[in-house]
Amino acid sequence: MNNILVAQSGGPTSAINGTLSGVIRAGIESERVDKVYGACYGIQGVLEEKFVDLTQIMQGEEEWSTEDKLDLLRRTPAAALGSCRFKLNDIQEDDSQYERIIEIFRKKEICYFVYIGGNDSMDTVYKLSEYCKAKGIKDITVVGAPKTIDNDLCGIDHCPGFGSAAKYIATVFAELEREAEVYESPNVIIVELMGRHAGWLTAAAALAEKKEGRIPYLIYLEEHPFDMKHFLHDVQMALQNHSAVMVAVSEGVHDESGRFICETDAPKQQDVFGHSMLAGTGRILEEKVRNVIGCKVRSIELNLLQRCAAHMMSKTDIEESERLGYQAAEMALRGAGGQMSSLSRTTDDPYRVVYESVPISQVANLEKKVPLEWITAGGNGVTEDMITYLKPLIQGEISSVYKDGVPQYMYLK
Amino acid sequence: MNNILVAQSGGPTSAINGTLSGVIRAGIESERVDKVYGACYGIQGVLEEKFVDLTQIMQGEEEWSTEDKLDLLRRTPAAALGSCRFKLNDIQEDDSQYERIIEIFRKKEICYFVYIGGNDSMDTVYKLSEYCKAKGIKDITVVGAPKTIDNDLCGIDHCPGFGSAAKYIATVFAELEREAEVYESPNVIIVELMGRHAGWLTAAAALAEKKEGRIPYLIYLEEHPFDMKHFLHDVQMALQNHSAVMVAVSEGVHDESGRFICETDAPKQQDVFGHSMLAGTGRILEEKVRNVIGCKVRSIELNLLQRCAAHMMSKTDIEESERLGYQAAEMALRGAGGQMSSLSRTTDDPYRVVYESVPISQVANLEKKVPLEWITAGGNGVTEDMITYLKPLIQGEISSVYKDGVPQYMYLK
Repeated sequence: MNNILVAQSGGPTSAINGTLSGVIRAGIESERVDKVYGACYGIQGVLEEKFVDLTQIMQGEEEWSTEDKLDLLRRTPAAALGSCRFKLNDIQEDDSQYERIIEIFRKKEICYFVYIGGNDSMDTVYKLSEYCKAKGIKDITVVGAPKTIDNDLCGIDHCPGFGSAAKYIATVFAELEREAEVYESPNVIIVELMGRHAGWLTAAAALAEKKEGRIPYLIYLEEHPFDMKHFLHDVQMALQNHSAVMVAVSEGVHDESGRFICETDAPKQQDVFGHSMLAGTGRILEEKVRNVIGCKVRSIELNLLQRCAAHMMSKTDIEESERLGYQAAEMALRGAGGQMSSLSRTTDDPYRVVYESVPISQVANLEKKVPLEWITAGGNGVTEDMITYLKPLIQGEISSVYKDGVPQYMYLK
Repeated sequence: MNNILVAQSGGPTSAINGTLSGVIRAGIESERVDKVYGACYGIQGVLEEKFVDLTQIMQGEEEWSTEDKLDLLRRTPAAALGSCRFKLNDIQEDDSQYERIIEIFRKKEICYFVYIGGNDSMDTVYKLSEYCKAKGIKDITVVGAPKTIDNDLCGIDHCPGFGSAAKYIATVFAELEREAEVYESPNVIIVELMGRHAGWLTAAAALAEKKEGRIPYLIYLEEHPFDMKHFLHDVQMALQNHSAVMVAVSEGVHDESGRFICETDAPKQQDVFGHSMLAGTGRILEEKVRNVIGCKVRSIELNLLQRCAAHMMSKTDIEESERLGYQAAEMALRGAGGQMSSLSRTTDDPYRVVYESVPISQVANLEKKVPLEWITAGGNGVTEDMITYLKPLIQGEISSVYKDGVPQYMYLK
């Protein structure tokens, strides 16, 4: 038997099941594959032999067809197979995990392994491929399929999952902008976005800003040093001509010396047990605006919502995610190990991409930050180049399938 | 000229513009109405003569038809005319505001006034109607149209705006539930919902719970005394059989003596200026779970998102909201002053309502709480009666109109 195994790793997104759906489809379609297995909880689940038979789940005799199930899967948020944050040991120091993985692959007759994840997960693909190479194992191919809402993967124009998160963020900003304009008195709404190491998600707020241009936006990415005095000045200036101001801020903004704002400027807080509680960046900016400027201000942390809002997916993102999964499986089938399924953009308008593969070594453990030239001189906005880059990624919608008024999902474990 | 005036008041919702759209439509359709005026920023805007000509805006010669504009308006979140939180003076003490309002109505030839709002806003309708009655003013009719996400209005089965907020909350819980199951380790997700005085919004989480019943939900409404020890025990019990637990909590939960949890159990926090910072209820529960139980836990505050998420509207809610606005205008036209447009439910399944009107005195300044018999004995869930009540209100979807991938809205001021 020639079986294919797929697993998901790292932080979930609302598109990672689209990629999974693509891998499963390729496996089911290929005559060279007998079974499609899924490992629950990533590489950790592989080591613990937590497998599900995806061919059976997808082709089982139920009211739903295989096509319906694959379709429902791509509309399901978070990792349907479960995920892990697990780093394989250094091969030089201890290769017992690798031996164990290959042993399990042999037992389950797995020849192809597709691992869907971000830069940490690509480290697993890299190490496992290198191990196979070093051991002369030629009948097992390990490939990566990309995902991360953070958009910080190298070797790809943009990451599957990012477009949907960006569309959700832009939509939330458009809605909150309506809220900000409801009352006549000055009003600042601050939204804290995910991204400790890259400001891509925060930049997505600009997509709402550019839509109507009714009220000023202040956008602070973690790539630019954050200065509290400049921030307060920016808000004061914006309030001179408008009663409402929207602020988007990366959770990871830090000062010139690299210290996170949420660490340096946090009020000293202790809970009843004397443990310290760290206030978020948005909350700290909120308090500053309230105390220094004295106007109405509210901070909102989008938290997990920005990575699991499957009810607001970008069609472009989901279709690309699925295709990248499909292609990763194809790469595995043709023995292109140690590679990640990727895409590069040929034109912005009309938006066109070509699908390709990149060596995993160009992706694993690396981070792609926002280019500094895409941030405005004052450090409080993004340029038109950023908008040109972002806009195609949020185009199109995918509606949920509802049951009793609530979205319905696919369950695999 | 016989003109009709409409204004919006109190906290915005994603359905309040649906109601506005209904009022405008009735005004445009009626041969007895010359112009439909909107007052910006509620009754405060009336006093300041901040009017817009809605007939002109809706029938103006642009690429969009009147029908298209009314349709876009009902898909627009927050109060498109702006809002206020403004209480008219006591008539006995000082009736100068009332005189001024009537003077402005005479000047603008306004015979009908529809005020869209919650229980505080109905106080304005009540007082203004009483003033007209006392002064023998028979050619000006003042009526109310209901709205509030809190669902705490008396004299109506449920409030316009609540169904959309409930659908959004149920959807967010369904999505977060998928997040909670991603990792294998024990994981608690706590979501704090709006509602200082009534737990209806928090109860909406149960709509997600009942959908699949995969993981336990703990739901704490403000109507039931909250006990921290019981809460921690509930979480520990739930974690015995499941690795993931969802918690929904009203911001206004309080102990037996009536003290809010966010006040009594809040860590002592001070910002850099020595001002006290009040942590939210969800945040306090998060810290308790972390410190006492020691598992992975995250708290999320839905904040303004739950009242402005126009991208996740309930079709039932929006259609009812519009009809209630239309009916309020009709009531004004037939001189039924001092009344609020309302609906009552005749059957749950199939869901049927009848439209009616109620005397404003039965609504103004009153609050409808969740019946205690709809809360489970342990105070950590809701009964089937609650589900039967809630379910019809979230049925159906209304999609947004997108422009460049971001929802498009109607602007009136």
